Amino acid sequence: MVTAAVNSWKLNIERADRFFSPLTEEQLRKEVAPGKNRLIYLWGHLTAVHDRMLPLLVLGARRHPEYDALFLTNPDRTAPTLPAAAEIKKAWDEINGTLLAGFEGLSAADWLQKHASVSEEDFAKDPQRNRLSVLLSRTTHISFHLGQTALIPK
Amino acid sequence: MVTAAVNSWKLNIERADRFFSPLTEEQLRKEVAPGKNRLIYLWGHLTAVHDRMLPLLVLGARRHPEYDALFLTNPDRTAPTLPAAAEIKKAWDEINGTLLAGFEGLSAADWLQKHASVSEEDFAKDPQRNRLSVLLSRTTHISFHLGQTALIPK
Repeated sequence: MVTAAVNSWKLNIERADRFFSPLTEEQLRKEVAPGKNRLIYLWGHLTAVHDRMLPLLVLGARRHPEYDALFLTNPDRTAPTLPAAAEIKKAWDEINGTLLAGFEGLSAADWLQKHASVSEEDFAKDPQRNRLSVLLSRTTHISFHLGQTALIPK
Repeated sequence: MVTAAVNSWKLNIERADRFFSPLTEEQLRKEVAPGKNRLIYLWGHLTAVHDRMLPLLVLGARRHPEYDALFLTNPDRTAPTLPAAAEIKKAWDEINGTLLAGFEGLSAADWLQKHASVSEEDFAKDPQRNRLSVLLSRTTHISFHLGQTALIPK
């Protein structure tokens, strides 16, 4: 069961990686639709969201907390400068690699434990606020944004 | 574990339902981006893909096989006419309701059984070609298209 969920995560990470990693700085400045997020923002956004999964799933400290202000808590075009594509690629690979190594060390019972942002009391009331649910919701989140990138004319 | 996967499916179905169900015929003719699929096509497309899950997960016969030619095997704007919004809504509700009722009758062991489109031999080689993997991939598929609908100006 856990294998199916981790496989679904990996598949979506691979799809995102195949899409974003080969893009040039210029291509990364394209918007997914007129006036909407640029690709560089979406890539940094996914990286920031995945970075937050490290403490949330109790797999380690964040690597790039500074990505939040750039790609998550503020909309696109707020930050005067963004990291270079090569830097985002490095952060993306490091964070996703650390997550995957962490996933492989978790037992089925670990996945059903509470994630770090829910209290013991709230978890007792709703045991679905577990680590597996975080994994599944972050997997659909990748797919949500991949659907947007698919709209860009080739 | 199964509960987490079924909850993720339900959440995405509810999001899609909240988005599509209130739209008028006119609103359903909007494209998600210039020259891309219209909303009515995406709604019918999700309905057709979910209809195919009925035999695939051994939960029953298809309800609307005629949706394939309209919304799946041909691109948008191929069919001279499409069903009315009210008809798609009825099919969408019926199909998703049948699926959910079926999911609730499956045990954990059932979810790890092979789906209907893989042979016994291939399943023996790759036991991840199971019903749970179908559920997870169809859940990310909903999210993929919801990401596109999110780009439409309000």
